[in-house]
Amino acid sequence: MSILDLGADPVDLTAALVDIESVSGDEAAIADAVQEALESQAGHLEVVRNGNAVLARTDLGRPGRVIFAGHLDTVPVNANLPVRREGTGDAERLHGLGTVDMKGGDAVFLHLAATVPAPKHDVTFVFYDCEEVEAVRNGLGRIERELPGWLRADLAIVGEPSNAVIEAGCQGTMRAEIRVTGARAHTARAWRGVNAIHLLSEPLRLLSDYRPRTPKIDGLTYREGLQAVKISGGVAGNVVPDEAVLTVNHRFAPDRSPEQAEKHLREVFDGFELSIVDLSPGALPGLGAPAAAELVAAAGGQPMAKLGWTDVARFAALGMPAVNYGPGDPALAHSQGENVAAAEIRQVKTVLRSFLGA
Amino acid sequence: MSILDLGADPVDLTAALVDIESVSGDEAAIADAVQEALESQAGHLEVVRNGNAVLARTDLGRPGRVIFAGHLDTVPVNANLPVRREGTGDAERLHGLGTVDMKGGDAVFLHLAATVPAPKHDVTFVFYDCEEVEAVRNGLGRIERELPGWLRADLAIVGEPSNAVIEAGCQGTMRAEIRVTGARAHTARAWRGVNAIHLLSEPLRLLSDYRPRTPKIDGLTYREGLQAVKISGGVAGNVVPDEAVLTVNHRFAPDRSPEQAEKHLREVFDGFELSIVDLSPGALPGLGAPAAAELVAAAGGQPMAKLGWTDVARFAALGMPAVNYGPGDPALAHSQGENVAAAEIRQVKTVLRSFLGA
Repeated sequence: MSILDLGADPVDLTAALVDIESVSGDEAAIADAVQEALESQAGHLEVVRNGNAVLARTDLGRPGRVIFAGHLDTVPVNANLPVRREGTGDAERLHGLGTVDMKGGDAVFLHLAATVPAPKHDVTFVFYDCEEVEAVRNGLGRIERELPGWLRADLAIVGEPSNAVIEAGCQGTMRAEIRVTGARAHTARAWRGVNAIHLLSEPLRLLSDYRPRTPKIDGLTYREGLQAVKISGGVAGNVVPDEAVLTVNHRFAPDRSPEQAEKHLREVFDGFELSIVDLSPGALPGLGAPAAAELVAAAGGQPMAKLGWTDVARFAALGMPAVNYGPGDPALAHSQGENVAAAEIRQVKTVLRSFLGA
Repeated sequence: MSILDLGADPVDLTAALVDIESVSGDEAAIADAVQEALESQAGHLEVVRNGNAVLARTDLGRPGRVIFAGHLDTVPVNANLPVRREGTGDAERLHGLGTVDMKGGDAVFLHLAATVPAPKHDVTFVFYDCEEVEAVRNGLGRIERELPGWLRADLAIVGEPSNAVIEAGCQGTMRAEIRVTGARAHTARAWRGVNAIHLLSEPLRLLSDYRPRTPKIDGLTYREGLQAVKISGGVAGNVVPDEAVLTVNHRFAPDRSPEQAEKHLREVFDGFELSIVDLSPGALPGLGAPAAAELVAAAGGQPMAKLGWTDVARFAALGMPAVNYGPGDPALAHSQGENVAAAEIRQVKTVLRSFLGA
């Protein structure tokens, strides 16, 4: 018998998924459960396993195809398992690791997979591993390399938490290191050296004074950002340090290419040695595409700009419009006390069933 | 037979001492050799062992007493053992770990111990352990607690490298942490947080703009300093950090007490949370005392202000004038390539023999 009952209320299914611990790199158990459940309860789908990812799809010859993608992994456990349910009915909330990021979205997608056998669009479900760690380990990247045919569609819906509001496009993100070099000396004879940490005074001033753009694209407002995320330097308690490094994270709206964003960073920190250490391009909203417009209509309300970077951008890079749509407040993601409203899980289910014509 | 021939040229004795590896905490072998040599070759002295320190003294009823103190330990080996001798005669140089810091000084003191049986002043020799590590492990501190009577004198000569010039007094040193607190947020929504690293911009500007004092005391010029020695902050590549810490090292001239120096730091960083994490008071030159004046006369030339902190300050705190006087360039201490001129070792020997009336 399955651990997961895909036909049940996706709120119960969310709770069951949360209770299968699945920290990044350790998703075998949850992938096994998802695979078994899809094979036994969604016989109309073609199911394949790829590493700790599980993929499933229809092949009904519909004119369009929609991908539903959700990662199965979570950030590390922080005394927030097993799931704790509080309240009843629409007032119920689920507390625990993954309730927000993103087993609520996974539950809705699994529920759709089993309960909508004749969707209006062909559908592909992608449940994958290692989204919460370095981009190079991301299961979606592996699928792209090994099963590229599975990632062709006319719209991708990524079930990351978005307060059950459609978030379109996404900002790019770039990390850069600013490295300053001085000359080492004993602090008792500091004038013989050049203190590299002191040289970071100017880049920090530039950061403090920085005013980010808030461009409007397709009616959505983006908010860029430029933040120090790490600073380090120092040799010993009595040594003038000869090197210090400041790492900044730049979030840039999707009207700028990575090259343009890098150029901007180099202008801001003109005269400093700057190297890009991590980069993910943004994605334009793409809400004009037919399937995307249908989804917006089904969800009602005004879509929002996606500020954080999500795998939406990977799908956008594959040439399809992609949106973020899932239950839960993204501000709670990765916090110890993450929790989601049962009502929001059910709302996303209702919208997506309607979008699929069920 | 002794490994160490105390009656020989102290240059040879320096080489022999260098070849007894004695990284801090591992001084048993060198202390054994020093103890055996003093007991067998300086029968006129009372010799005691304390941990890995060896003490020896006369009791001739002279009106004054002088302490000669040298640490036996070195910083870690760095592919710079055994000793390597280059050149001959006065052009000879000894290369290797401890040649500068401070087995040249130790060798001169051991030579005096064995070859000046009737010094003008009563003499106390203190060869001790663990000077190159945390103050709490310093052998001199242990001797102060366990054999306080051995550290009473009218002048202390610490044989740390000083280019064979008398260095008087020493600057105090203080480390302080400046801790800034912000509010954590995701970098995609940075405006919800307060970036602690950005808040270090102002303390770094204060450091960059800081102009240290150069006070004159007893005719000696001191140079103070205020230097960042460590900076750290950062949670993850996509998180606005809520804490950052800047560690500064303040070197202050001996006309300021530790309390005055701390008050000064708090004025410089007014408005910031500052805590003192390490503190060693300075020591006034005290060259007016008779034995100190005799030493200055014997050495000829102008004494210099001691800028670095040495155990001179420990003796000053015990109420006696204390100077630093030894062969070797202190700028080479702790460097892989430390090396000393044989001529400088012999010069210090000659001056100190004359000072002792030999």
